[in-house]
Amino acid sequence: MNAYQPPTDDMQFVLSRVLNAPQQLQALPAFAEVDAALMHQVLEQAGKFVGEVIAPLNRIGDEVGAKWHDGQVTMPPGFKAAYQAFWQSGWPALAASAEDGGQGLPSVLEAMLYEMLSAANHGWTMAPGLLHGAYECIKHHGSASLQALYLEKVATGEWLATMCLTEPHAGSDLGLARTKAVPLADGRYAVSGTKIFISGGEHDLSENIVHLVLARLPDAPPGPKGLSLFLVPKFYPDGTRSRVHCDRIEEKMGLHGSPTCVMRFDQAVCDLVGEPCKGLRAMFVMMNAARLHVALQGIGLLDAAWQKANAYAQERRQMRAPGRGKSSAEADLIAEHPAMRRILDTQRAWVDAGRLLAYRTALELDQIKHSPDTEVQTAAQRWCALVTPVMKSVFTQQAFHGGSDCLQVFGGHGYVREWGIEQIVRDARVAMIYEGTNEIQAIDLLVRKVLPDGASAMNALLDSLQAEIGASDPNGLAAHARIAKLRAMTAQIIAAAPQDAALPFRVADDYLRAVALVLIDAAWLRIEGCLDAQNPNASARWQAPAQALRNWVLPEFEMRAAIIAAQCAFIVTPLATSLNAPLTAPLATPLTASIG
Amino acid sequence: MNAYQPPTDDMQFVLSRVLNAPQQLQALPAFAEVDAALMHQVLEQAGKFVGEVIAPLNRIGDEVGAKWHDGQVTMPPGFKAAYQAFWQSGWPALAASAEDGGQGLPSVLEAMLYEMLSAANHGWTMAPGLLHGAYECIKHHGSASLQALYLEKVATGEWLATMCLTEPHAGSDLGLARTKAVPLADGRYAVSGTKIFISGGEHDLSENIVHLVLARLPDAPPGPKGLSLFLVPKFYPDGTRSRVHCDRIEEKMGLHGSPTCVMRFDQAVCDLVGEPCKGLRAMFVMMNAARLHVALQGIGLLDAAWQKANAYAQERRQMRAPGRGKSSAEADLIAEHPAMRRILDTQRAWVDAGRLLAYRTALELDQIKHSPDTEVQTAAQRWCALVTPVMKSVFTQQAFHGGSDCLQVFGGHGYVREWGIEQIVRDARVAMIYEGTNEIQAIDLLVRKVLPDGASAMNALLDSLQAEIGASDPNGLAAHARIAKLRAMTAQIIAAAPQDAALPFRVADDYLRAVALVLIDAAWLRIEGCLDAQNPNASARWQAPAQALRNWVLPEFEMRAAIIAAQCAFIVTPLATSLNAPLTAPLATPLTASIG
Repeated sequence: MNAYQPPTDDMQFVLSRVLNAPQQLQALPAFAEVDAALMHQVLEQAGKFVGEVIAPLNRIGDEVGAKWHDGQVTMPPGFKAAYQAFWQSGWPALAASAEDGGQGLPSVLEAMLYEMLSAANHGWTMAPGLLHGAYECIKHHGSASLQALYLEKVATGEWLATMCLTEPHAGSDLGLARTKAVPLADGRYAVSGTKIFISGGEHDLSENIVHLVLARLPDAPPGPKGLSLFLVPKFYPDGTRSRVHCDRIEEKMGLHGSPTCVMRFDQAVCDLVGEPCKGLRAMFVMMNAARLHVALQGIGLLDAAWQKANAYAQERRQMRAPGRGKSSAEADLIAEHPAMRRILDTQRAWVDAGRLLAYRTALELDQIKHSPDTEVQTAAQRWCALVTPVMKSVFTQQAFHGGSDCLQVFGGHGYVREWGIEQIVRDARVAMIYEGTNEIQAIDLLVRKVLPDGASAMNALLDSLQAEIGASDPNGLAAHARIAKLRAMTAQIIAAAPQDAALPFRVADDYLRAVALVLIDAAWLRIEGCLDAQNPNASARWQAPAQALRNWVLPEFEMRAAIIAAQCAFIVTPLATSLNAPLTAPLATPLTASIG
Repeated sequence: MNAYQPPTDDMQFVLSRVLNAPQQLQALPAFAEVDAALMHQVLEQAGKFVGEVIAPLNRIGDEVGAKWHDGQVTMPPGFKAAYQAFWQSGWPALAASAEDGGQGLPSVLEAMLYEMLSAANHGWTMAPGLLHGAYECIKHHGSASLQALYLEKVATGEWLATMCLTEPHAGSDLGLARTKAVPLADGRYAVSGTKIFISGGEHDLSENIVHLVLARLPDAPPGPKGLSLFLVPKFYPDGTRSRVHCDRIEEKMGLHGSPTCVMRFDQAVCDLVGEPCKGLRAMFVMMNAARLHVALQGIGLLDAAWQKANAYAQERRQMRAPGRGKSSAEADLIAEHPAMRRILDTQRAWVDAGRLLAYRTALELDQIKHSPDTEVQTAAQRWCALVTPVMKSVFTQQAFHGGSDCLQVFGGHGYVREWGIEQIVRDARVAMIYEGTNEIQAIDLLVRKVLPDGASAMNALLDSLQAEIGASDPNGLAAHARIAKLRAMTAQIIAAAPQDAALPFRVADDYLRAVALVLIDAAWLRIEGCLDAQNPNASARWQAPAQALRNWVLPEFEMRAAIIAAQCAFIVTPLATSLNAPLTAPLATPLTASIG
């Protein structure tokens, strides 16, 4: 079994050559001293740490897993030492402000670090992965006294943190949450209730754990607008233990290295974070960053799966590949078989495009934080709002489905634990669910972000994409044609939606996929525009994935367009008997048939 | 967690009402006494046994799993007793000939039994699942003396059996197998070598295990034509133990209830089955039946996943569904959300079509065995040759991917063990690999079965499908149009293939998917043709899946057609700059970029 190797050369190429990140960032006052050499050095050090310290713990994390006993959770062997080395080296605080004990580097470097960490060891990475949201939350919403006690500890990762949102009956629908917070005489609160699916709710990695908990004050309205945010640590700064208990951890499909805890709050004394009844708003501030990190998990895991499958395919021989002459070997390499090349090149097309789009999104987050230019800010906000749900959905989906394709390259060997590929598929599956299910991402995009402004933000985004794409070659022309079709598709949905409230929800997933394909296409055109024609060896690395993209990935766009057109056509002209029209009116279907 | 319930009413509807199976079968002399009442009774009894005895063992099979110790394998608690009850009730011998101790019933009943068994407990079902191929093999190729010793024991399932094909370096490519057989003075042989991935190679379910082993005689040529088939039992009929050893069992992604064994043959005394060097031919006789059973595993597992997701979606409430008025409940049922309905109805569309196509294939196998009419025989052979690889591929794929969609209906609860849905996804994954990987099924269809005769068999199959489809309504017309396009697509590939040996291998998967969609479409038209217009309640059950098929499943057909057309167009007119043309010539891609 070969462990994941951080592909720092490819990452560097995308960051510097394609995205011009160092130049972009140096133009910002906050990063005036962040030059290409520094970024390169940080990336190489991160890659070394990930490859040497984190990747080797991936398998033991899966096989031994986190263990619960009597309220305590013991992490797999090696996890604690690796985490101590991680925070003491300053990695969690890479992008935190210097005044909070951080290094004040750009978010894009943090994004690249997390791509590598997730690829190397998704389970281990869950623990520090939650720090950044908690840090932003305390920084932007915590009182001065709360910040004095917790901010630096969380920023540096000396103390780990959790987000306690979900309850047994309230998953995607946080408005149903029932956990209660009661005011105490001293201005603090006591929180009571049970939260589930709390990643890292209990463990032995850090000496303290800071929980951010959504709960309802006595006089709060029902629904999401009645939720407030509270902070309760495992140990108070004076060393006393809080009334927060880990009742058990879940048995899961994968991600065994991360304890998924049931946390019971038993009148636990806590502090309010931000204003009463504005808890969701406080948590959603960092939503784009959190969703981008989940997309990066997908990209990293898919790259890890590709690396394994590629190595295996370059080593093992089975049967004769078509069009190959007789060789001295008794069979050809798996990598030479067209069906296997298709799998390998296709995953690489996704990884490369994903990397570019994710780094770009992280750079836009840096612009949002640091650019003095309001126009740049607006464009960056727009990019993040529209692109982040797309990234979260398609790259977590591709990690699972493309990871499964990579498993297929191993034949029967892929199904057994030995090669580690099946672990990637099991681990990756969760990312399609958490941080907002992929279906919710699609609704977020279409229903919450595209429809309300009549697609004006989406069309502005498409304008900016089009401005980047040349129209002098067939691939550029095809990209322009797809963008035009996406605009038309958007208009179709806007026109049909008023007549059928369910329509946008029904086609949200198709719409998100269509947007994703346009983004990925544009990403590849940018990559191709940066290849060095004088250096055919360097270009060759990118040719097969580019071709796989056009042969096997982009044709999905027309299918999504056709699905959406048929749904909209039906609504607009209900009597049409077009061949593409659905059998009966979507809402006319008697749900009772199955609801019974 | 709700266990799988055999849907015998739906199965019965497809078998009797849609396929007219009892009438068809009673026309055959062998089944003159098999009437609708008997078939119904067998099905109900099978459903009862599966639901009461086999389904409840599914979870313990996964959690405890098969255990290896010092060459012995202990099956999970309850497995042995269930197996003893199974064979003693005569279930393994349902379709075996009466003269071999069987019940002489049609294959289609056996197929239906295995659909239910696989849905209920894939791991347990692996053990008896291998009996039928071994029975056919010994029956058709074993010597009289071998048959006297083994045939009835295997037919009845008193002794279980294995197929020992794969070796560490020879998976899909059996021609690389190195296991040796040396003739002994008494006319028998001694076989030596290591076989891997042997399902049920060792266990405690039956008192003996019969291994059918591919091995090479000393003077045999290299490659697949040098393989002979041998029989070696765990215990010889005189009670002595053979030199067959289980060295270990694999740790797998799923299917923990089935031991996947490494078997070492250490000069094990054995008998030749059939003629020397015709071992593969002997094994491939039952290939269509074996692949159909794997397709049925997919259909069964997908149905089990659907059942779980549907039950959960009818019970749990999250958020408001669009277009629903305020109700007294604080949220709407998951089943009322369009994205979830889409998942549920789509899987049902696959299951229903799969069931019809699989039962039909089993009926064609019955015709092959028993019809006196050579024309019927020829058509049945054609159906099985062309349809079986399609079924194996698409339904195992759908079990995994559609099973994963069903997992998504549970949100975070789907990822934890509690609800049993993640087990289905893990278990189902293996079926995409064994009995010929899905990529090999696609090559089998296009390269071995469609291209060699210039698609004449495929076109004859399409003729017969078209004859079944009315052209009086839009859906029928659309189906005819798709079939016409499939013919054109086939002709395109035939025209382009001579110029590029790799082309058919590159598009084989798209071609198989296109054929599958045509078959599924035709299956649904048959189902719809049998609905009782007088009974809207009965029809309502089928409407939502039919609509999901047309809304979400069939649009893939045009995508596959476009992919194939682009690949063929490129070959035929290499200088074309069509927007759909791939970037560079497929074979011109320097493989060295990644091989290097």
